[in-house]
Amino acid sequence: MSVLIVYAHPEPSSFTGALKDTAVRVLTQAGHDVEVSDLYGEQFNPVAGRHDFTTVANPQRFHYQAEQAHASASHGFSAELAREQRRVEHSSAVILVFPLWWGGVPAILKGWFERVLAYGFAYEDGMRYETGFFRGRGGLMGAVTGGTRERFSEGGAYGTIAQVLWPTQHCMIEYLGLDTPEPFVAYAAPRVSPRQREEYLRQWADRVLHCAGTAARQLPEPLRAKAGTSATTWSS
Amino acid sequence: MSVLIVYAHPEPSSFTGALKDTAVRVLTQAGHDVEVSDLYGEQFNPVAGRHDFTTVANPQRFHYQAEQAHASASHGFSAELAREQRRVEHSSAVILVFPLWWGGVPAILKGWFERVLAYGFAYEDGMRYETGFFRGRGGLMGAVTGGTRERFSEGGAYGTIAQVLWPTQHCMIEYLGLDTPEPFVAYAAPRVSPRQREEYLRQWADRVLHCAGTAARQLPEPLRAKAGTSATTWSS
Repeated sequence: MSVLIVYAHPEPSSFTGALKDTAVRVLTQAGHDVEVSDLYGEQFNPVAGRHDFTTVANPQRFHYQAEQAHASASHGFSAELAREQRRVEHSSAVILVFPLWWGGVPAILKGWFERVLAYGFAYEDGMRYETGFFRGRGGLMGAVTGGTRERFSEGGAYGTIAQVLWPTQHCMIEYLGLDTPEPFVAYAAPRVSPRQREEYLRQWADRVLHCAGTAARQLPEPLRAKAGTSATTWSS
Repeated sequence: MSVLIVYAHPEPSSFTGALKDTAVRVLTQAGHDVEVSDLYGEQFNPVAGRHDFTTVANPQRFHYQAEQAHASASHGFSAELAREQRRVEHSSAVILVFPLWWGGVPAILKGWFERVLAYGFAYEDGMRYETGFFRGRGGLMGAVTGGTRERFSEGGAYGTIAQVLWPTQHCMIEYLGLDTPEPFVAYAAPRVSPRQREEYLRQWADRVLHCAGTAARQLPEPLRAKAGTSATTWSS
């Protein structure tokens, strides 16, 4: 098992890039295997569509979840998605590293969730949160903001950081069943002093090692591979 | 001025597609000009990058906001983005129509925000919310969920709908200064009765007409075109 870092920033020398580099370094030094999905570097396509699949459940009407369920049951994912799913499957912890854009993850990372963490592969009806497929695995996000901590506080312009990150933390990471602590946030990273940025990297290194260490002490269950499941809902 | 509908669903016969069709029909019947950005139909690319620009502020280091600021000051956006910005500029109201995926807008719509609503075009330091460029224009979202209303209620699995939609409503729509009511949500649209779906469409038609009517009674200010502005932050 290895730790999977899903990294979403177009500029390697960004502070988000420094979080990714730090995570890779300290995890490797601690003896963990590390895999990086570098979404910009690998030119990941975030747009859901028929190109996700080598199989077709319904050629007339494109119902995304139903096509995902069909592909999950018949090894029908495109090479790109199959590769990402293998990375997820072989990881004991998943760490998301991204800049906060418009109050959420960049589109390229949102699309990674939509396409890779497919129905039948990553969740099913009734199999989420405490019954999620990813129970026993660790999850952590490291977010970089342009705005100061005050802007993400009670009474601040954007609402509290818990409010802003709720869909990412609760509807994405926790939804999968990942065992996750509070998000790590490097507030106003572009504006703070070099010393504060170094402090951020030190705190981040601790958080990453703790997440990987906790995950390594548990034995994650293999992801369920259920044949013949199908989405019971219609297209929304 | 027209009403801009930004529509994000890969399947025209989906209920999200029906929301879009209904909005176009009732707005046209009421005498409004309507423009549709059909993100899937027009194969909108949601990935931010140097391809956004015909200009280059810094060839060594890609700082997205700084490149946006530079492009805003020198007409440096790609043809695709310039077209979308014209649509936004000529609208008295912007209506987002999308399925709720992983607690938020689909990646293709998230990327539309990131790329089209660029620094210098859609906001600047100190020009957001009550000083936002879009004051006097209307904003409305119509979201379709697979989950039931109960799942988005106090004590429900996903948290309240206000919690889930906070970043979309507050950090995206309100951030721009758009005058916006509560989001419209068609809960569990794929699972409810045909009669309930018709009721959703009736309610939605009212909401759309109200939004457009309110916006039409105000005279939106032209978006500021400020020459020589530049982002004061470094890359996050």
